[in-house]
Amino acid sequence: MQSDNIYITKPILPKLTDFTDGIEKIFESDQLTNMGKLHNELEKKLQTELDVSNFSLFNNGTTALITALNVLELPPESEVITTPYTFPATIHSIILSGLKPTFCDIEPETMCINADKIENLINDKTSAILGVHVYGFPCDVQKIEKISKKYNLKVIYDGAHCFSSKINGQGIGNYGDITMFSFHATKLFHTIEGGGLAYKDNNLKQKINTFRNFGIESENAVTYLGLNGKMNEISALMGLKNLEIYKFEQNKRMLLKQFYDRNLMIKGIKIPKMPKNTTDSYQYYPIIINDEYPLSRDKIIEKLKSKNIYARKYFYPACNDYDCYKKILEINQDDLPIVNDIKNKVLCLPFYGDLSDNARNLICEVLKDV
Amino acid sequence: MQSDNIYITKPILPKLTDFTDGIEKIFESDQLTNMGKLHNELEKKLQTELDVSNFSLFNNGTTALITALNVLELPPESEVITTPYTFPATIHSIILSGLKPTFCDIEPETMCINADKIENLINDKTSAILGVHVYGFPCDVQKIEKISKKYNLKVIYDGAHCFSSKINGQGIGNYGDITMFSFHATKLFHTIEGGGLAYKDNNLKQKINTFRNFGIESENAVTYLGLNGKMNEISALMGLKNLEIYKFEQNKRMLLKQFYDRNLMIKGIKIPKMPKNTTDSYQYYPIIINDEYPLSRDKIIEKLKSKNIYARKYFYPACNDYDCYKKILEINQDDLPIVNDIKNKVLCLPFYGDLSDNARNLICEVLKDV
Repeated sequence: MQSDNIYITKPILPKLTDFTDGIEKIFESDQLTNMGKLHNELEKKLQTELDVSNFSLFNNGTTALITALNVLELPPESEVITTPYTFPATIHSIILSGLKPTFCDIEPETMCINADKIENLINDKTSAILGVHVYGFPCDVQKIEKISKKYNLKVIYDGAHCFSSKINGQGIGNYGDITMFSFHATKLFHTIEGGGLAYKDNNLKQKINTFRNFGIESENAVTYLGLNGKMNEISALMGLKNLEIYKFEQNKRMLLKQFYDRNLMIKGIKIPKMPKNTTDSYQYYPIIINDEYPLSRDKIIEKLKSKNIYARKYFYPACNDYDCYKKILEINQDDLPIVNDIKNKVLCLPFYGDLSDNARNLICEVLKDV
Repeated sequence: MQSDNIYITKPILPKLTDFTDGIEKIFESDQLTNMGKLHNELEKKLQTELDVSNFSLFNNGTTALITALNVLELPPESEVITTPYTFPATIHSIILSGLKPTFCDIEPETMCINADKIENLINDKTSAILGVHVYGFPCDVQKIEKISKKYNLKVIYDGAHCFSSKINGQGIGNYGDITMFSFHATKLFHTIEGGGLAYKDNNLKQKINTFRNFGIESENAVTYLGLNGKMNEISALMGLKNLEIYKFEQNKRMLLKQFYDRNLMIKGIKIPKMPKNTTDSYQYYPIIINDEYPLSRDKIIEKLKSKNIYARKYFYPACNDYDCYKKILEINQDDLPIVNDIKNKVLCLPFYGDLSDNARNLICEVLKDV
């Protein structure tokens, strides 16, 4: 029996005194927020770390994604082809930006938007593709780029799960027009709450940074219907300290992944693999409980729970099931067979560096012992 | 000459060790955000402090206000009568919520929405009144309540400037359906970045709290197009510590106000007064530079700046001047004579407890010496 509750993740934390020394300096500076010194330092360092040409920090990934959808000036009420296999914020952001999401099915291996099914959904109103690099598995960025060029569409990626990931040796934020990152406490690298946008076009910088500060362009001009997207100095401090340590966590997770991979070679359990020439962010460890496995996904959750282990059916429900979209979107469930299959079979296991040997052994035993 | 730059405000800060002791406990808890222990404790304490029947915390005032405008379920594209004499977030929030702001002129004494001019603007599409208790001066809540009952309109107040204010001995958050508070670092009481909603109707609680967490009602249901409105634990810690000290700051500002009031009895300078039976939050110290004064407001700003004192023309421009509304709103400038007068005459002076005697003397000398 596992005495403490085990959840699917646990935030990394810098050494307490490193953090409190930084707090002392913030207190001395009298500047707690509004693009302060640490904010600017972190923004610069993340641009390097993520290997991208432009980077803007935000107070969370949702505000960042809404900003991305607004600054590209997509025609009002135009359609954005996207995946329903994601966190609600992805789809909410599209609708809250005055646009219409069109759900495309996912690819069974990566669980990302199925690039082969995108063209079928394009019509006169389509203005953009929004892919999600779900669990850190990358979308088929080459195919999506080809389609976007053919039809003159903008491409946005929700990269909430893929901090530091690379495709063909390049930072994942270099693909598409804008990539959103999330730095929420549940993420590998975090700023408590936080997020950011990576983008290629230098001309977007002023627009993005104005939008995140209420659209205030200067003392005398308000030019956009912007939001409060400002990251404060204490979150920026957390980010600067976590930048120094996140790779150790990533290494520990790599070893944990190897352990799970070795011990979960069980009939009926599928372990999705990273595509060639891509690197893992080690954000989540999802497995697929297929029909050959003697128990359903939900029964496994119950069994683990009885031992104080809280695995997560993440993502269930999928966005195509949400009550809040039923009234406002036409959703054809027949077009989404893979999403509707995987949402009932996926299970995210506890996945963080400090997970005890005891706990990881117990998890594997529960899954083997059927 | 004043050697350090003096700005209009400076955030209060708790004793460093009080704060860092709290950080240590947060680190031990492993919960950094998502409605943690300190979040819930602060929410409860603010409900008492603000003397309101329901209170929900937010990551900032803008998210809070957008939530308020959404949970009242005003008909899409309906009209909200409001004041253009406010921060951009007030009006942005209305538009971002799919509603249409209608600008009403302000009352010259309090600079709040002129309740006598509201009825003229009501039509079939009007669904709500959004008043701003600007600088902590309260709107005419009685008159507004009467109008709202007569026409069956919802009433929302932007109370960003009026932490702890009372009207007739009652917390200001008791007037109207929902009142938004801001806890940004520039505010008397702050949580670095933060905000909240006070509301009378208990039935709104679940809706508001669901909306601020992406609309996720339960593990299996997403019911609203919500946002990320979560206040993290470190901001909540700052709030808990500042709750213990903000009254000392308020007292110092009261003394500073008395000093300014005594020393700025100058021909052509008007010092707005709090209405009867209301208490001041001591958030800002605005003065009006009338035509009888030998210098324009902008010339005074230059003169102060030459002595490293940064007074602020707050609010200039007014929202009826913003580029971002020109294309989407019909604004009749002739209906807004008081706003268009005051925006050119108002000046907020440096106003915080630690303002040195030197600095306050210098400010008054500059204003007298013409």
